[in-house]
Amino acid sequence: LEVESGTSYVHLNGRLAPAAEARIGVCDHGLLYGDGLFETVRVSHGRCFRPAAHLARLAESARRLQLALPWPEADLTAALQETAAANRLREGALRLTVTRGEGKPVPDPDVCARPTYFITARTVEPVSEAVFERGTRLCPGPQHPRSFVPGIKSLCFLPYQLARTAAKAGGFDDAVLLWDDRVVETGISNVFAVFDGVLTTPDLSSGCLPGVTRALLLDLAPALGHPARERPVTLSELSAADEVLVSNSVVGVLPVRAAGAVTWEAAPGPITRSLRTAYLELVRRETC
Amino acid sequence: LEVESGTSYVHLNGRLAPAAEARIGVCDHGLLYGDGLFETVRVSHGRCFRPAAHLARLAESARRLQLALPWPEADLTAALQETAAANRLREGALRLTVTRGEGKPVPDPDVCARPTYFITARTVEPVSEAVFERGTRLCPGPQHPRSFVPGIKSLCFLPYQLARTAAKAGGFDDAVLLWDDRVVETGISNVFAVFDGVLTTPDLSSGCLPGVTRALLLDLAPALGHPARERPVTLSELSAADEVLVSNSVVGVLPVRAAGAVTWEAAPGPITRSLRTAYLELVRRETC
Repeated sequence: LEVESGTSYVHLNGRLAPAAEARIGVCDHGLLYGDGLFETVRVSHGRCFRPAAHLARLAESARRLQLALPWPEADLTAALQETAAANRLREGALRLTVTRGEGKPVPDPDVCARPTYFITARTVEPVSEAVFERGTRLCPGPQHPRSFVPGIKSLCFLPYQLARTAAKAGGFDDAVLLWDDRVVETGISNVFAVFDGVLTTPDLSSGCLPGVTRALLLDLAPALGHPARERPVTLSELSAADEVLVSNSVVGVLPVRAAGAVTWEAAPGPITRSLRTAYLELVRRETC
Repeated sequence: LEVESGTSYVHLNGRLAPAAEARIGVCDHGLLYGDGLFETVRVSHGRCFRPAAHLARLAESARRLQLALPWPEADLTAALQETAAANRLREGALRLTVTRGEGKPVPDPDVCARPTYFITARTVEPVSEAVFERGTRLCPGPQHPRSFVPGIKSLCFLPYQLARTAAKAGGFDDAVLLWDDRVVETGISNVFAVFDGVLTTPDLSSGCLPGVTRALLLDLAPALGHPARERPVTLSELSAADEVLVSNSVVGVLPVRAAGAVTWEAAPGPITRSLRTAYLELVRRETC
């Protein structure tokens, strides 16, 4: 899906460093215990798209982890933009990672004096028309680790990774994580279904991440004449939907072509097309 | 419970380095995605206790994560012992961490060329008689993240951490993680209950970690005249047990004094005492 290049400069705790010099101590609790958070921010035309929405989500997640962020939001916003500039990033993504910081190697967050942050960049080719027309294929996947830390984009990403790896081994692009028979999200995206013209997505009680693009689409749809609704969605409902699509900050909107043995031959459907057009226009307007 | 001191030297990918110089790139997927594993090995009389059992568990977990470990077991065993020696560690614990290694910051393990390992040390005072007599207090806790990656000691440790933090805030030492009403494990230990003289612990299908000390106690108990059994154990069964104890590689055996509102006034019970004595003797014999 993506043509990518790596990071040349990393913003680490307030200063830019060449990637090879951006290193952290092995006793950072982000590494030892997965105690940390991340956000993936789209960059278009060299500018961050909606960084404030990402930083708001980060702040809320940090609050839930009792992780006090010592950096003013304005500093993080500037650091994001500086990282894009240093990497001459035009189209791509920035990943802002926050960890609990260094401390003794014992399972107690209180031994860490101060959180760490770093920002990495990568180039991502915008989704082409061909890729959009082809759509994505989802494998009805494993149970969602929602008893875990629902709704928080933590560094404990392994269950998502494993679900995707298994899906790919089966010829799919990603997995739909389930809560019993309810759809939660995929390994990297929120999921939407269209029923009789209503754009529908699992509500946050499912344990899905409160995606920035998810929120944006829920806002956009009514303005385009499509009512939007958050409610539980079962896998069998999803299979019978008129259209299915996924969203995240890196790809924006992608139609789902298949979920397991069910295929949508006519994908991308009209509402998916309409959302993609409006989303791209919004990104262009806010970053150009 | 523990009086500890930190690490002075870290073994990192084959060489010892002062802790301040033991650093890894921020694009290690162990940090970015929690993609890695760890083992905690007890050190007594300056020697590792049963490193082979830990390395066997590590190898099995790595296999399940499709993480090929490029280091001969003998090298890791030597590295553990060298780390203990460099830190002049007499009584304490070594933590061996293995990560997927560095790669581009994209959620795909295949971009990582080679895993990383490092070993940190910490001094831990052996459990004193007073601490043993006092025992530990458990809070019947949250649901276990077993849909996660059951039985694997991965870097995605946050749910355990949060469960312990919540338990401590409530005046307990740790939480009992549950699968519906079944006992799985605590944030850092396996759980045993004694029913009519039978030492009983949740079977591995509960999603608990296959603890090295757990296996050792299951082996030891019959030789001491106590039948041992692995089977599902509910929280209400636990509350009615004659004795409850926890085990891990750092503390060995600890009696449980309370689980929620239920207390065992007579703790430590006779089987808990007998197991502790036999465990300490075994450690002494193999490390002295």
